[in-house]
Amino acid sequence: MNEKSLIKLIKSTLNSSEYIGDDCAYLPDLGIVITQDSLVEDVHFKTSFITPYQLGFKTVMVNISDVCASGAEPEYLTISLSLPDYIDEKFVKDFYEGAQKASEKVKIVGGDLTGGDKIYISAAAIGSAKGRKISSRSNAKPGYKIIVSGEHGSSAYGLNMLLDGKNEPERFIKAHLMPVAQREFSKLISENIKEDYAMMDTSDGLADALIQIALASNVTIDIDTSKIPHDPLVDIETVLYGGEDYQLVAAVPEYLLKKLTGYTIIGDVKKGAAVLNLDGKIYTNIDNKLYKHFKE
Amino acid sequence: MNEKSLIKLIKSTLNSSEYIGDDCAYLPDLGIVITQDSLVEDVHFKTSFITPYQLGFKTVMVNISDVCASGAEPEYLTISLSLPDYIDEKFVKDFYEGAQKASEKVKIVGGDLTGGDKIYISAAAIGSAKGRKISSRSNAKPGYKIIVSGEHGSSAYGLNMLLDGKNEPERFIKAHLMPVAQREFSKLISENIKEDYAMMDTSDGLADALIQIALASNVTIDIDTSKIPHDPLVDIETVLYGGEDYQLVAAVPEYLLKKLTGYTIIGDVKKGAAVLNLDGKIYTNIDNKLYKHFKE
Repeated sequence: MNEKSLIKLIKSTLNSSEYIGDDCAYLPDLGIVITQDSLVEDVHFKTSFITPYQLGFKTVMVNISDVCASGAEPEYLTISLSLPDYIDEKFVKDFYEGAQKASEKVKIVGGDLTGGDKIYISAAAIGSAKGRKISSRSNAKPGYKIIVSGEHGSSAYGLNMLLDGKNEPERFIKAHLMPVAQREFSKLISENIKEDYAMMDTSDGLADALIQIALASNVTIDIDTSKIPHDPLVDIETVLYGGEDYQLVAAVPEYLLKKLTGYTIIGDVKKGAAVLNLDGKIYTNIDNKLYKHFKE
Repeated sequence: MNEKSLIKLIKSTLNSSEYIGDDCAYLPDLGIVITQDSLVEDVHFKTSFITPYQLGFKTVMVNISDVCASGAEPEYLTISLSLPDYIDEKFVKDFYEGAQKASEKVKIVGGDLTGGDKIYISAAAIGSAKGRKISSRSNAKPGYKIIVSGEHGSSAYGLNMLLDGKNEPERFIKAHLMPVAQREFSKLISENIKEDYAMMDTSDGLADALIQIALASNVTIDIDTSKIPHDPLVDIETVLYGGEDYQLVAAVPEYLLKKLTGYTIIGDVKKGAAVLNLDGKIYTNIDNKLYKHFKE
């Protein structure tokens, strides 16, 4: 199964397909965005690598990150847990303590508990659009600057360390197991911008987010890869194609930059074919390089 | 694992526990309710009994039913699907056609697709509280009447037929595989009532819903079981304890009844101990009779 072709199929089946395509669905009549993201045992995580506390923390952050990518303020979460028989109360308590820690001001307000053969976690998050301009990946315009939050590739580097049985340096393990959603970066942009703009999180990798924006906006995105912030230990392939950093990448007008902090300019949006230009190499898709979980 | 003791544990871990306890969480600042419910292969369904179309239909109805239980207007849905490798495009297309059919005016606006060993479905539904009074199971008051929509026990009767390899009479199979959420019953009550009231759906059985209301509201609920509408083929144990009918049961003031249609009065709310009185037999819990899925 190819996820992208299945999403096309689903959009052609539904009569509400205009809502589908961004990290969140924007519901203007209710003034909210909603997203739902799942974590499946042995697909997205292995219990030998991640503690229940970290798993609860990451579940919440992954969903809050999607809300941040829309520019909305994360407010509420529901969590649905499917748990095998061997799971004990301590697991559930630790999981929710991690979830509570990651939530900060976001309220966990419901969900359900069911049995299952493996651990399956699905969470839905709601954000408020009040006072915020909501992004869409189709809103990048020629002349806009491409900016990113944080460092890239550290999570995938940490995953590779775990797969190799290494635990040091610990900062990479932490980047993978306990990513932090970029609330402030999102808020600064969405509260200060007047124009349409594009923003995504880098859950499937930075290059994937960039190409999604280029395709949806029908623009050329030129990236100078030497500008992408990353840990000196992380190679450029992992920086570009490693996923799960949950950093943000945005295409915004230049005037906005003086109102922002904590960003790095890595490229430009240009008129032209819907392609990603990485230091002069042109890509129309990077599916063969896409970040892989344990199994897809 | 006991679901109810785990929910207690979760509530004690979270600092937002006041939202947890009803079929939906009510978020007054956003004017919405939200619910999330999951269907797990071999726990809630078997692919040998249910078609992909029916599964999509039921997924949507189960979540819309929770919104109806709150009294809100169902408006938006997200669906998260975890699918094993053997699942083909036809399954996905049929699933979403069933989901679209059940949705009617509700819009399916997102979700995600992941791999997995079994089919795992989790959906989140949002309802609008605009012009509606939102229910809570803790709001039953002495003097209120207990009313129900529809017929009870048909779904569990249908499940037992499937387990016995029987396909006739078809109405029971349909009640189990393609339940219909009670939108009109919910709307009539929540648009016309001024006082606090209790309402639940009967996903875990009618007797379970009644005892939840009695316990949460700290009242005695007297039921005349001969008044409960049911198909003549269905025995009273299945009527009381069979689940997944997705009918509604409500405790409402008597004056409201003249504004309603399609309801049956089955009992009264009385001052006294928090118990369920079925024809004179007193219950403080019915956990040993609770509706069982294939596996829990």
